[in-house]
Amino acid sequence: MKRVKVSNNVIRRIPRYLRKLDELMEAGVTRISSFDLGQQLGLTPSQIRQDFSCFGEFGQQGYGYNVAALREQVAAILGMDRGFSAILIGVGNIGRALMDNFCFSEWGFHLLSAFEVNPALIGTELSGVLIRSMDELESFLAENKVDVAVLSVPKEAALRVTERLTKNGIRAIWNFTNVELTDPNSSILVENVHFSDSLLSLSYYISERKDEEAARAARAEKLAGAEK
Amino acid sequence: MKRVKVSNNVIRRIPRYLRKLDELMEAGVTRISSFDLGQQLGLTPSQIRQDFSCFGEFGQQGYGYNVAALREQVAAILGMDRGFSAILIGVGNIGRALMDNFCFSEWGFHLLSAFEVNPALIGTELSGVLIRSMDELESFLAENKVDVAVLSVPKEAALRVTERLTKNGIRAIWNFTNVELTDPNSSILVENVHFSDSLLSLSYYISERKDEEAARAARAEKLAGAEK
Repeated sequence: MKRVKVSNNVIRRIPRYLRKLDELMEAGVTRISSFDLGQQLGLTPSQIRQDFSCFGEFGQQGYGYNVAALREQVAAILGMDRGFSAILIGVGNIGRALMDNFCFSEWGFHLLSAFEVNPALIGTELSGVLIRSMDELESFLAENKVDVAVLSVPKEAALRVTERLTKNGIRAIWNFTNVELTDPNSSILVENVHFSDSLLSLSYYISERKDEEAARAARAEKLAGAEK
Repeated sequence: MKRVKVSNNVIRRIPRYLRKLDELMEAGVTRISSFDLGQQLGLTPSQIRQDFSCFGEFGQQGYGYNVAALREQVAAILGMDRGFSAILIGVGNIGRALMDNFCFSEWGFHLLSAFEVNPALIGTELSGVLIRSMDELESFLAENKVDVAVLSVPKEAALRVTERLTKNGIRAIWNFTNVELTDPNSSILVENVHFSDSLLSLSYYISERKDEEAARAARAEKLAGAEK
């Protein structure tokens, strides 16, 4: 694929396009204009055309986008057709939720194995994936090509486990630990899932709405007072 | 608080500032320049000054920021001092992970109760929070001020439960279901945690790196061929 440097903001929007296109396909929509797509996503048509233009020409003037074709191209942009492999470290609540409910294969990932320290879990399977002992981590990594390690260990273990992973060839981490792993000088890709960032954004929006409503109420009261 | 319309990009960065400031405080740092703060966050000093200028004047020319004071102000911007309340719906793996490991109070939220349909869980407590029957949802909402509903029910139940929540006064949802709840015409605030968006962004970055490495290798090979 032709690679131009694409801004992080664009990259962050692409998975949203994918979700929307999946939704459209499920609803039987075969073709959509950048205007309608924009409306459904809260984006302007020109922003949508600009985003896709980073990766080539997809739409057709006056016709719009073919939904199935665009979906395929978006999936390719995201690397979903590359067959990336993953392992999961730490089968606590979050690890279990991911293994139980998150469909890795739907997103092009093959979850090869999970790793745990809890003897009660070692040797068992979850959603068809074998849970191995952490002692086997190094030998497994020596024998298997693993693109991503999903890190769902307790906070205290995060840095120690990360060191073992990167020492043994792991170069991308999907991090659920809320511990900052990113070393600005390192070539390891780290994608953080920070629940708190998400909740705090919501907290901001709620605060904003409350302030606006309070201001409106104050103005209305003032007005009512003036009319007396 | 003075409210000006702040862009979503800025709002999304504020929780990151908070995390960084907490880290600095823990490390005993009492004062930091916008230059150093920017370096640690991968942002330019001017971007940082611009972000904070949306909310008032915080730094001091030549001195930088007082870490503890800035932390307090950032927390206030995010509404962490407002004592928002929350309930959690659905104590499956994700719900359990949130109740077990996510410290709501650390982010200013008071988790009042959880709700479940599974009789084995109803009446039990998790991390000191009572799990009630879904049958009690309406009466609970009538008697308690609840700012946020955390939605961690199975996909199939998402829309049905959302309707019950919004009919009974809930106006903000923290959505873990991967079901699109946002109705563009609704005044309900929905904050989605889409695991797949996060993994697909990582997938994009891995693909990009692989392509760049392949291109570099091809160039090196060509060069080696030319030198023969």
